[in-house]
Amino acid sequence: MREVCIVGVGFSPWGEVWRHSLRSLYVEAAQAAIRDAGVDHVDSIYVGCMTGGLFVGQEHLGPLVADYLGMRGVPAAHVESACASGGMAVRQAFLEVASGVSEIVLAGGVEKMTDCTGDAATAALATAADQEYEVFNGATFPGLYAMMAQAHMHRYGTSRDVLSAVAVKNHHNGSLNPVAQYQFEVTMEQVSNSVLVADPLRVLDCSGITDGAAAVIVTSLDVAKSLGRPYVRVTGSGVATDSIALAQRSDFTSIPSARLAVQRALAMARRELKDIRFAEVHDCFTIAEIMILESIGFYKPSAAGPATLAGETALDGRLPINPSGGLKAKGHPVGATGVAQVAEGFKQLTGRAESGRQIKGQPTIGLCHNMGGSGASSVVHILEAGQ
Amino acid sequence: MREVCIVGVGFSPWGEVWRHSLRSLYVEAAQAAIRDAGVDHVDSIYVGCMTGGLFVGQEHLGPLVADYLGMRGVPAAHVESACASGGMAVRQAFLEVASGVSEIVLAGGVEKMTDCTGDAATAALATAADQEYEVFNGATFPGLYAMMAQAHMHRYGTSRDVLSAVAVKNHHNGSLNPVAQYQFEVTMEQVSNSVLVADPLRVLDCSGITDGAAAVIVTSLDVAKSLGRPYVRVTGSGVATDSIALAQRSDFTSIPSARLAVQRALAMARRELKDIRFAEVHDCFTIAEIMILESIGFYKPSAAGPATLAGETALDGRLPINPSGGLKAKGHPVGATGVAQVAEGFKQLTGRAESGRQIKGQPTIGLCHNMGGSGASSVVHILEAGQ
Repeated sequence: MREVCIVGVGFSPWGEVWRHSLRSLYVEAAQAAIRDAGVDHVDSIYVGCMTGGLFVGQEHLGPLVADYLGMRGVPAAHVESACASGGMAVRQAFLEVASGVSEIVLAGGVEKMTDCTGDAATAALATAADQEYEVFNGATFPGLYAMMAQAHMHRYGTSRDVLSAVAVKNHHNGSLNPVAQYQFEVTMEQVSNSVLVADPLRVLDCSGITDGAAAVIVTSLDVAKSLGRPYVRVTGSGVATDSIALAQRSDFTSIPSARLAVQRALAMARRELKDIRFAEVHDCFTIAEIMILESIGFYKPSAAGPATLAGETALDGRLPINPSGGLKAKGHPVGATGVAQVAEGFKQLTGRAESGRQIKGQPTIGLCHNMGGSGASSVVHILEAGQ
Repeated sequence: MREVCIVGVGFSPWGEVWRHSLRSLYVEAAQAAIRDAGVDHVDSIYVGCMTGGLFVGQEHLGPLVADYLGMRGVPAAHVESACASGGMAVRQAFLEVASGVSEIVLAGGVEKMTDCTGDAATAALATAADQEYEVFNGATFPGLYAMMAQAHMHRYGTSRDVLSAVAVKNHHNGSLNPVAQYQFEVTMEQVSNSVLVADPLRVLDCSGITDGAAAVIVTSLDVAKSLGRPYVRVTGSGVATDSIALAQRSDFTSIPSARLAVQRALAMARRELKDIRFAEVHDCFTIAEIMILESIGFYKPSAAGPATLAGETALDGRLPINPSGGLKAKGHPVGATGVAQVAEGFKQLTGRAESGRQIKGQPTIGLCHNMGGSGASSVVHILEAGQ
C-alpha cells in the first residue's frame, strides 16, 4: 500500500450562505484547496454529501462538480454515510491513492441546508436514522441524542454543567476560526438557560443548520515531497458501523463504532491512543463529544465530563479537542464536516491554524473522528506531520 | 496495484416486489452472492443506490445493510453516481481490494422504486439531471433521450426500426433470464406501435421502474485462487464524466463519457476494443444502446443501427450486446443496474448463464458499461475469465 498525504485544504464561506448554491459552495472550497496545494490538475474527485436530493433536489453530484470546476471528463463520485459523508469522501480518496490508480485526488464535502424549511431540514436529517422504525415513530436527531444524554446523566451523574462546558469551550475555539458559522463566545449561563430543544438538550447544545463546503487534496508521498511545501501524512484510516437504530443497541451511553474505527485506524498507523496530541471529534450535540471521548478511550466512562470542566480538552489543555470550534461553533454542513475536520488537522500539523487557534508546541499527530446518525457509522483518520 | 477478482454473484427478485423493502432487497442479493462465493465473511461493504432519500426516505444505507446482514461493525459506505451508482460501487470495491486495505469486499446495488407514485419516481430520477437548469424547466429523462434520438435520426437517418430492433433483441435475451422483470418477447410491430412517451420514444423503448438488488464479491487474486472455484478477473476499471446538462454538450448524437471511460479501462487492462467478445451496456432507452455502441467505438457513427438490424449484436451474433436482456428487459432498479451488469459478465465468463442465454464458445473477455444521467457519468469494467 502506498503512503498517502494531504497537501492542501480549502473552505467555502460557512453559515447561511444565500449567494451560493450547492455546486458553487463545492467549487469555491475545491478551488481554494487546489490553489493551496499548488497542483495543476486532479486525477479524480469525490463529493461527500448526505442528501442533495432532499435538501436541494440534486443528485449525481460527482459530474455536477467536475463540470462546474471546469474539469469535464475527470472521474468523480458521490459518497454518503449521513453526517460521516465527508470522512468517507476522504477515505475513498485515500483508497484510490493507496491503490496506485490515481496520484492526485480531490476530496470535498458539501451541504446546502438552508434552501428548504426547518421542518424539511429536520426530515432530511432524519433519513440518517432508521426510517422504518425510528423515523416512522417520530424520532428526530435532537430526540435521539437527548435519550443518550438522559442515559449518560442517569448512569454517570453527568451534569448540566458538563454539557454547557463543551459548548463554552467549542465556541471559544470557534471564535478564533474565520470560517466558523458562530464566531462568538458563550457563557455557561447562556448555554444552560438557552431554549430547550429536547430535554436535556438546549439550543446551544446543538450544532447548527449550515451551508458550507470543505476540500482537501490527497496525493502520494512522492507527489507531496515534490511540491516542496509542508504536507501531512494520512497514516491510518478506519471505518466502523453499528445498528442504525439506537433502540437496537445494548447501551445508550457509549458509541461502539467510534471505538472500533479508532482501533482500526490506529492499527493501520501503528500508533497507540497515547500518541495522539489533539483530536477533532463529532460534537453534533454537546453530549456526543463527551460520549465519543469516553468511547474512543481518551477517558474512562464518566471521566470526560470532569476533564472537560477542568479544562483538559481546551485549546491550551493537555488534550485539545475540537480546536476548530467543532460542529457546535464551526457549523455542521453535514457532508462537509468530516472533510473540514481533516482540513483543521492539516492546519494544526503544519502550524497554519489562524487567529491564535494554533495548538502550542505544534503537535505532530492528530485524530479526526466523523460520525453518522446516532453512531451507526464512524470514520477515523490519523494524521501526522510530514517531516 | 494488486490484481482484483470477482468470485460470486447474487440477485434479489426484480420487478414490482411488494414483499421486500430496500434493506431486504439488498440483503437477499448479498446473501446469495456470499453463498455463491463460498466466503465466510466480508471485510467491507459498498451500497450503490441513486436516491434512497427520495424513493423511500432512507439515507445512511451503509450501516443499514451491514446491520440487516448481521454484520454490525463491518465498514460500509453508500456511493452514488445516479444510474451509474452500481458500477461505482464495484469501482470502490475494486480500489479497496487493489489498495490492500481489504481482502474481501461486498459490492451491492439496490433501488426500491415502486413505493412512491409514478410522478414522484420521475421527479426522483430527474435529480440525475441538472436541477437548476434542466429540471427547473421541466426536463425529464424520457424527454432528454428523445432529443438525443431525434438528433441521431436527423443526422444519420436512424429509423424507427433500429430502435425497435434493440428492444426486440433485448427482450429475447431477457426472456431467457430468470431474474428479468419482463421475461417475454416483443415483436417489431409491438414496439413500433406501443404508446408514445416522448417522440420518438415509445413505452417499449424505455426501461422499466423496478425494485431490485444485485451483489458481487470482490477479492484479491490470492483469495480467488484459494476458493477453488471459477473466478473472473477485473483487469480494467475506468470512470469518466461530462457536463451534467445535455444542453451544454456540443453534440447530442454521441456520449463522450462512454468513450473516455472505455479507453481508461482498456488502458488499465492493456487490451484493445477488438479483444472484447461481448458487452453489457446501459440501454436505459433503445437509442442509448445505439449511441453507446458508436461512442465506445464498436461501430462507426451511424453503423450500430444497421448492425443491430443485421443481428450482429444478438446472442448468437458476432458481438453479443446485453445478453442479460439489458435494462430494457431485465429492468432498471437504478442503483442495482451496474452491479447486475458485472454479475452477468461473471456468469457469461464462467459458463453459468441460465436458460440458453450462454454465449456460444464461452467468451473470455467482456465489457460492462454503466451510465448516469444523459451520459454525465460512465463507469466501465473489463472482465476476463480467471484461467
